[in-house]
Amino acid sequence: MHLTQGLHRAVQTRGRETATIFGDRRRTWSELRDRVARLAAALVARGLKPGDRVGVISLNSDRFVEAYFATWWAGGVIMPSNTRWAVPEHNYALADSGTTILLLDRNFAKLLPELAAANEFRAVILLDDGEAPPGTESVDAIIASSQPMPDTCGNGNELAGLFYTGGTTGRSKGVMLSHDSLISNFLCASGMLPYSSEPIFLHSPPMFHLADAAAVIGVTMRAGQHVVIPFFSPENVVKAIERHRCTDAVFVPTMFAMLRDYLAAHPADLTSMRHIRYGASPISETLLRDAMAMFPNAEFAQAYGQTELSPAATALEWRFHKERNGKSYLRSAGRAIFGIDVRIVDEEMRECPTGTVGEIAVRSPGNMLGYWNQPELTERTIVDGWVRTGDAGYMDEEGFVYLVDRVKDMIVSGGENVYSAEVENALASHPAVAECAVIGVPDDKWGERVHAIVRLKADARASETELIDHCKRAIAGYKCPRSVELRAEPLPLSGAGKILKTDLRAPYWVGHSRRVN
Amino acid sequence: MHLTQGLHRAVQTRGRETATIFGDRRRTWSELRDRVARLAAALVARGLKPGDRVGVISLNSDRFVEAYFATWWAGGVIMPSNTRWAVPEHNYALADSGTTILLLDRNFAKLLPELAAANEFRAVILLDDGEAPPGTESVDAIIASSQPMPDTCGNGNELAGLFYTGGTTGRSKGVMLSHDSLISNFLCASGMLPYSSEPIFLHSPPMFHLADAAAVIGVTMRAGQHVVIPFFSPENVVKAIERHRCTDAVFVPTMFAMLRDYLAAHPADLTSMRHIRYGASPISETLLRDAMAMFPNAEFAQAYGQTELSPAATALEWRFHKERNGKSYLRSAGRAIFGIDVRIVDEEMRECPTGTVGEIAVRSPGNMLGYWNQPELTERTIVDGWVRTGDAGYMDEEGFVYLVDRVKDMIVSGGENVYSAEVENALASHPAVAECAVIGVPDDKWGERVHAIVRLKADARASETELIDHCKRAIAGYKCPRSVELRAEPLPLSGAGKILKTDLRAPYWVGHSRRVN
Repeated sequence: MHLTQGLHRAVQTRGRETATIFGDRRRTWSELRDRVARLAAALVARGLKPGDRVGVISLNSDRFVEAYFATWWAGGVIMPSNTRWAVPEHNYALADSGTTILLLDRNFAKLLPELAAANEFRAVILLDDGEAPPGTESVDAIIASSQPMPDTCGNGNELAGLFYTGGTTGRSKGVMLSHDSLISNFLCASGMLPYSSEPIFLHSPPMFHLADAAAVIGVTMRAGQHVVIPFFSPENVVKAIERHRCTDAVFVPTMFAMLRDYLAAHPADLTSMRHIRYGASPISETLLRDAMAMFPNAEFAQAYGQTELSPAATALEWRFHKERNGKSYLRSAGRAIFGIDVRIVDEEMRECPTGTVGEIAVRSPGNMLGYWNQPELTERTIVDGWVRTGDAGYMDEEGFVYLVDRVKDMIVSGGENVYSAEVENALASHPAVAECAVIGVPDDKWGERVHAIVRLKADARASETELIDHCKRAIAGYKCPRSVELRAEPLPLSGAGKILKTDLRAPYWVGHSRRVN
Repeated sequence: MHLTQGLHRAVQTRGRETATIFGDRRRTWSELRDRVARLAAALVARGLKPGDRVGVISLNSDRFVEAYFATWWAGGVIMPSNTRWAVPEHNYALADSGTTILLLDRNFAKLLPELAAANEFRAVILLDDGEAPPGTESVDAIIASSQPMPDTCGNGNELAGLFYTGGTTGRSKGVMLSHDSLISNFLCASGMLPYSSEPIFLHSPPMFHLADAAAVIGVTMRAGQHVVIPFFSPENVVKAIERHRCTDAVFVPTMFAMLRDYLAAHPADLTSMRHIRYGASPISETLLRDAMAMFPNAEFAQAYGQTELSPAATALEWRFHKERNGKSYLRSAGRAIFGIDVRIVDEEMRECPTGTVGEIAVRSPGNMLGYWNQPELTERTIVDGWVRTGDAGYMDEEGFVYLVDRVKDMIVSGGENVYSAEVENALASHPAVAECAVIGVPDDKWGERVHAIVRLKADARASETELIDHCKRAIAGYKCPRSVELRAEPLPLSGAGKILKTDLRAPYWVGHSRRVN
């Protein structure tokens, strides 16, 4: 299987229908294929050989979709950079991956002198409108001056993408994903994380992240429409849904929280939405119920996974978003998707009994090939075909997985393990709380102390004592925050929309050493 | 990926729920896994090595499901025989495949002396209730006396099954399908040929045929329920649906015709049915509309494929069973399922223009590994990764495939190509027609003459002239039958429920030679 297969099928079945919408620009599937085949030819003319890496530093756009498919059409490997990175982080990934051709949009063109000083590019292409700055070529100009090349259509087990991950913990690693991994994960997921028949899909999370890149692949395989906005903002999202009557989208939980705040002041018609998938970080029940109310016609499905898995491993289907036999499943990340083995294991990779917390391990056709240039880390991560996710969780007797935390993020307070997701869930159910994060901070008596950082909703009020008392009504006393910090500004987010606990934790740990699991 | 994966997941998610129902017997997923692990151990104890072939000659039963999974659990290759075969055909497949262990039910135990005379079996196992006849062991006894073995869980590209095909044309060929082929076809198909979330699936087509064996795999991957009846009869089907409130099933068109006749005299409650897939031979619009009326709550989806493709290649989704923009799609076999390339090609494998009839070619992760022991035939059939299906068809500008006929079954009359499916469709729309087949018979003037063999509905009447005139109102004169034979008895069917045109054609061609494409 090859990732351009979906593009060919889309032309065969819906060639004259809209493929991409960006601002006022629409392109059909036939037009998209033509541009992809020309851009691929241009990449090859600039020295791209099969397996060479093509870097992209860009906000979302229809041209980002073209960059994915043109790279694959030409036989290359895409390396989409995190747009939040500082220059040294960009240079690390560019050098580590050995990127030889770089595509970047106008927002990042100003970084070019520093990037070009540290790397040798065969070509730098402006993935944007208008005149190309010095040292770059305009993508539209090179598409116009190239003839379409035939699809290289290589073997499915070849490398398709290097996705650098690890923004919230540790050093960034290049996750190697093949064509087969990415396609099979779409196929495995499609029974439990359904799209509409012909989705009008809103891309608002960053396309460099696999949560959205998976939809670049999936919506193409379904010959749907890609509605692309440059970046997530509540206003961008609401306007795009209303204008294009979008039917499908993927969101991360913090986006629901921001949409909730925005919609309170700006009511909107979001009834066109039919399928919403969400994931990438834990969600509180309160926020999930609010999100379902915001999109009254949408079926929600939660995906749990990670880049190393291409990315989905489990899914909480829509039918489990309602109570069944008096049981709520909303705290669960769902069950293994079809074709994928999920287990809870101890440190020796032995399966844990039902209900016991351990590390989540996954064996899937979507498993990564490994970490680029890191054979030892790869060997520690993929054991007998199982990817160790680094996430802690347990499984109930129906195979539902409950995430408790990143193994590394678990708080050990007075010898008791405290999983911050559980505490955050309790805090988030307080009506005044807009967002929160729970971390471990050094404590002479307890080793680590459970500490909460909370932003209240506009005009809402709640005292530290009131918030702690609220938690005590929901969870055991030893799990409750012993201190609460109220903040006015939003909590810091990674490029993928996850709260950056590393940043929140850092000031408390200056001068202390923290155990690492 | 390994075909037992779905069984493990089913135990993980629904271990205490019903897995198989056969008559009054119900077994849970945990019980099924236990029996499978014990039967696998028994097979290994009887000399089965990885890759060895296990033959099954049996009507449908819950134990047939166990035989599939036990063979895979033990690392073996299943070779399910066509239950309609005569002894020489059984012996051909057993010898050609090199089957060393044979499982057969009581209906076929009487064949054993003739099979054992021509083959050397390491073991013969009675796949049925009660005492085992001489030379056989009872499956329940060996399950009871064996300890469960661990799943061998081999590589996905290993051979999982040899499915002998070619019942309607030519010599039987062993189609080699791997674990990956069979699983990936389930995954590719699941977006367009959906099951219910937890299907209660009625197995009525023979399980030796991939149309139903694919559901043995698919329903297990979905952890649904297998409701098994020994063989298709309208009464068996109706009673099982009413008793178990079945939700899903697969049927071939002739079964719809038989159900229609039966239901006219025996009204029944079939409202529990939600998803029906059908295929394996062309269907007339009239029969399809009647079938949709019989199952008022069911969404229908047509699959087109063949054993060589594991088996699905295209699907006509439920949404195309209704008119869209004044266009009916009911004559189409649908569009390429996700992840699969479908093309219409000429004899040199060049792609035909839209609307031009050619051979249907398919490139799919479900492609067979080849024909067992037939490298030359394999080389002629799989060209550059594309399986030549031997089916003639064309594709419209939206990628919908229209089957016109088996390439070999096309009638050439007076230099004009006549596709029997089109003529059969015209004939079937006459209210008196119960079933019909159109074949070419020798004709001095025209080379071949279009000849129809028709069975009328009970108590219905129509003359030869009236039927020909009816066709003339629907299709061009040269395509209409020049002769019609009315028969009282049902037309002969293959084990898979396809009309045996070879048999119908044979008496007319004695002493003549017919061109072979």
